[in-house]
Amino acid sequence: MQVQSGVPKFGIGMDCSVTPLRHGGLCLVQTTDFFFPLVDDPYMQGQIACANVLSDLYAMGVTECDNMLMLLGVPKAFTDKERDAIMPLIMRGFKDKAAEAETSVTGGQTVINPWCLVGGVATCVCLPTDIVSPNNAVVGDVLVLTKPLGTQIAVNAHQWLDQPEKWKKIQSVVSPEEVERAYQEAMYNMSLLNRTAASLMRKFNAHGSTDVTGFGILGHAKNLVENQKNEVRFVIHNLPVIANMQNVAKTCGNQFQLLQGYSAETSGGLLIAFPREQAAAFCREMEKSTGHTAWIIGIVDRGSRTAQIIEKPRVIAVTTKMN
Amino acid sequence: MQVQSGVPKFGIGMDCSVTPLRHGGLCLVQTTDFFFPLVDDPYMQGQIACANVLSDLYAMGVTECDNMLMLLGVPKAFTDKERDAIMPLIMRGFKDKAAEAETSVTGGQTVINPWCLVGGVATCVCLPTDIVSPNNAVVGDVLVLTKPLGTQIAVNAHQWLDQPEKWKKIQSVVSPEEVERAYQEAMYNMSLLNRTAASLMRKFNAHGSTDVTGFGILGHAKNLVENQKNEVRFVIHNLPVIANMQNVAKTCGNQFQLLQGYSAETSGGLLIAFPREQAAAFCREMEKSTGHTAWIIGIVDRGSRTAQIIEKPRVIAVTTKMN
Repeated sequence: MQVQSGVPKFGIGMDCSVTPLRHGGLCLVQTTDFFFPLVDDPYMQGQIACANVLSDLYAMGVTECDNMLMLLGVPKAFTDKERDAIMPLIMRGFKDKAAEAETSVTGGQTVINPWCLVGGVATCVCLPTDIVSPNNAVVGDVLVLTKPLGTQIAVNAHQWLDQPEKWKKIQSVVSPEEVERAYQEAMYNMSLLNRTAASLMRKFNAHGSTDVTGFGILGHAKNLVENQKNEVRFVIHNLPVIANMQNVAKTCGNQFQLLQGYSAETSGGLLIAFPREQAAAFCREMEKSTGHTAWIIGIVDRGSRTAQIIEKPRVIAVTTKMN
Repeated sequence: MQVQSGVPKFGIGMDCSVTPLRHGGLCLVQTTDFFFPLVDDPYMQGQIACANVLSDLYAMGVTECDNMLMLLGVPKAFTDKERDAIMPLIMRGFKDKAAEAETSVTGGQTVINPWCLVGGVATCVCLPTDIVSPNNAVVGDVLVLTKPLGTQIAVNAHQWLDQPEKWKKIQSVVSPEEVERAYQEAMYNMSLLNRTAASLMRKFNAHGSTDVTGFGILGHAKNLVENQKNEVRFVIHNLPVIANMQNVAKTCGNQFQLLQGYSAETSGGLLIAFPREQAAAFCREMEKSTGHTAWIIGIVDRGSRTAQIIEKPRVIAVTTKMN
């Protein structure tokens, strides 16, 4: 969870902490995140961890990260050989992704820990005007999402390929090939930077945004709407979901709460409120710049700062053309 | 360990990462540290963790911390009751110490972990001239230390009070009361901020400094001397040690390597190279400002960037008048 105390003098600092500085009207925008690996590939895990840390800056429209620190826990149970094979790959993935984001990793901390830990700190020193104030949604705006949902389900289903008891539960609705494809799709999406989205949301005058992670699409939508200045509510009609993961979620009963909006995501997309015309332009330019689809998933209506998903949302099955 | 890559344009950034910023000739000075609790008192542990993180800034003469983030791991085995009793005390200790340092904690990350974890991130945005370049020691300088050694020995000896087998090993050289006193002394010293020392080392023209932590006094002296511009060596004659801990260390054979200079410290003091006259003035003013002694422990001689402790160093038994 993001611990947040001390109200900044501007904005609401939802995804990052924002601290006014003593120099030149500048402010310090900072975020940290660390967690336990969820994919098998150490290099991908490093990339995902880095993209995930940076995502909080991007959610505030901040596109330039001045510096990153890396946080690592090396599993106690690793042999020297395992450690020397795996940890450098995680670190390389993290550093390569930082380089892609045009920033660098200049320090950090490594400890021995029972579980593997990977994460970091991202920092930007900028002018307050470089931050997209996340609390200006108005009635008539629409909501855009920049990555598909269902990463947790794909990761779990992939683990179940090796657990016959669990696999039995879902084998009637999905093939091993489909699960493998969904897992690749999830890894690919989790490792994507939200940086272009952050840059374009400034260009197209976003009224507010957040990134979708552990609380699921509806959890984060609620958090965003609760912090709006105007009396609005968010209504979500469409749920873009990694192909076939809707069926897995359904078959698993209430475990994931995908259609209810609470399935956790790791390094998910940005959820952004835009003026209606700007939203379409944003989606077009996202497609053009990144080759990836962004979806209009809902509307901003009059209301008392609540968010909901309609009873029968349209599920959009997403298959990305991966590079 | 402090991972350090990417050479800053000034100084050597030994204890912190130093990153030039895009704005106003400023730079970003950052450090992070997290570790596992070593004392029984959660409130003290929070204070020690905070003082320890800030110590890296202070080691570079940076006295103003603009912002802190807190990193926590909540033990998986905690009951709800234990968690709710203990974690808020750790957090309060951390925040109170941050307030004492005139900074604040504006965010962070908490995870569930098999072991308890506590640490943080400290950040300062300042002018390059606010940093004491740590690589200017010259022949004729002397070395000053601002906190006594022996914290790890005191913490261990205190744990052994409850372990008859281990206690038997040291009971002939130390009484339970002496161990209790040393433990209190260690906690007190570990929770002390090196901020006044940082401020005074600027005033008295320090030529270089580092903070003493996991590698022990000689480990950190070696690291500091290796990074000097001039061909110097450090020779340490005096070792200020928490009272009675020298005897415990001796009785334990090679376990701690106290007199060899490798006994790990947590949140130790600053090791500073000063011009000789300035060193005496620094120590006098430290005593006057903080009520605590700083010791001249060695000299800077001509040499090939090595550090050593003389064969029979003078051990100074330290008993602080605690507030």
